[in-house]
Amino acid sequence: MTSKNLSLTLSPIGFFRCPAQYPYDVPRQGSLAPEAIGIIELNDELPCHLALKELDGFSHLWVIFWFHHNNSWRPLVCPPRHREQKVGVFASRSPYRPNPLGLSCVKLVSIDGNRIQVAGHDLLDGTPILDLKPYLPYADAVPDAIAGWTAAKPELRYAVVLTETAESHLAWLEANGLDCLRNFIHNHLESEPLNARRHRLENRTSDSASLAYRTWRADFTCDDEHRIVRVTAIRSAYTKDDLDNPTDRYGDKELHRRFVRQQ
Amino acid sequence: MTSKNLSLTLSPIGFFRCPAQYPYDVPRQGSLAPEAIGIIELNDELPCHLALKELDGFSHLWVIFWFHHNNSWRPLVCPPRHREQKVGVFASRSPYRPNPLGLSCVKLVSIDGNRIQVAGHDLLDGTPILDLKPYLPYADAVPDAIAGWTAAKPELRYAVVLTETAESHLAWLEANGLDCLRNFIHNHLESEPLNARRHRLENRTSDSASLAYRTWRADFTCDDEHRIVRVTAIRSAYTKDDLDNPTDRYGDKELHRRFVRQQ
Repeated sequence: MTSKNLSLTLSPIGFFRCPAQYPYDVPRQGSLAPEAIGIIELNDELPCHLALKELDGFSHLWVIFWFHHNNSWRPLVCPPRHREQKVGVFASRSPYRPNPLGLSCVKLVSIDGNRIQVAGHDLLDGTPILDLKPYLPYADAVPDAIAGWTAAKPELRYAVVLTETAESHLAWLEANGLDCLRNFIHNHLESEPLNARRHRLENRTSDSASLAYRTWRADFTCDDEHRIVRVTAIRSAYTKDDLDNPTDRYGDKELHRRFVRQQ
Repeated sequence: MTSKNLSLTLSPIGFFRCPAQYPYDVPRQGSLAPEAIGIIELNDELPCHLALKELDGFSHLWVIFWFHHNNSWRPLVCPPRHREQKVGVFASRSPYRPNPLGLSCVKLVSIDGNRIQVAGHDLLDGTPILDLKPYLPYADAVPDAIAGWTAAKPELRYAVVLTETAESHLAWLEANGLDCLRNFIHNHLESEPLNARRHRLENRTSDSASLAYRTWRADFTCDDEHRIVRVTAIRSAYTKDDLDNPTDRYGDKELHRRFVRQQ
């Protein structure tokens, strides 16, 4: 049997539902965002009352999913921790794989019919789910496993705090439907907040920058000695002229105008 | 996007090589057979020198593979630990899944070109490999995960010892090419050695039986109080008449004749 004459065709058993829409909305591993909640919505045609029997006794499960944004692969990849040197795709969890299969361990919160609520995930809304398996600590937990290149550079975590001003901006935006920004800020600023190789930073200096999230910007300062990132304000990336112009490519100018007016 | 119009086609990135030929040759989890060695042989056409770069720094890796013996699935399955009640397929690691994807954590021994030697596996020879990922302890190790129904019935492990006679039988057979029998005996007798629901037991009494392995039999006694299984002999399942008959359905009668003669 060779690979040349062999192929396996899979169909999703369901889809993932959560607020995260874009790859940069999610942390690089679900365990870094224990508060991120999502729903695995299994297909109606599956006999879920049978197929999920006794799954609720487990605290964690494996989700095997389809990296559906990825149509190509590369033998070398640049992992998200901004390392200088590329690593092999099989030495990474990069989505650019020969077979676009993702694997995440998530916390099981509850099961209601064909809907499974999970926490601590790194999946995007709409991700096709291919399989679920119970987490078996005696087979799956290797706490003393050697972590290769990921351990080579110990990670410094920063505390991310919001000033009163930034908090009021964020609260207003959340009340008006922009519910991904808070997670995004925490995910992106708790590690290497000022790394020069990061694409989402604007106006970077030695101790401050702005983080870009779609048409919004989070201004922050960084206290490297105490490992604290202080978010000072959220602001619109549109200029006054942009807001006066009726062309609305992202369909969000009305929200920006209201945000600017209420300040 | 719904599952009805969506399918993902995968091709193996390589194949597994090991002595285990049949599902009953492997333990129900690789961690139960740390000595089981196998080779992941990646396709020649893959640029392995790039795709595997830095993988050798990890002690463990995930293998996602195709349960290629399985063409159908069932919503309820009977797990190998002989439990009285069936569980949902998604609450099990059974191969009878809607998408026949297998997941195993294995120990990485060495990498040589496109060949990766691994230990502690539960894969069969010829298994198509779909993906490899590094084991990341910070994301994958949850030692205190709650193990659902698998923890409901604490497992009693038996020590499996061979008498001098059984050891000499086994050594002769191994010297003559039958190299799976020792693992098979250990895998099958260290847990529930006399369970009445097991199909591979013959001549079962309250404290002894024979374990069937293809055309061979391992006779054993069981000391339940001290949790010791004592394998007393390996013998041919052919009768003298069978051996005199030239019909040789399994192509192994010459080995059996030599085995019987040398005793």
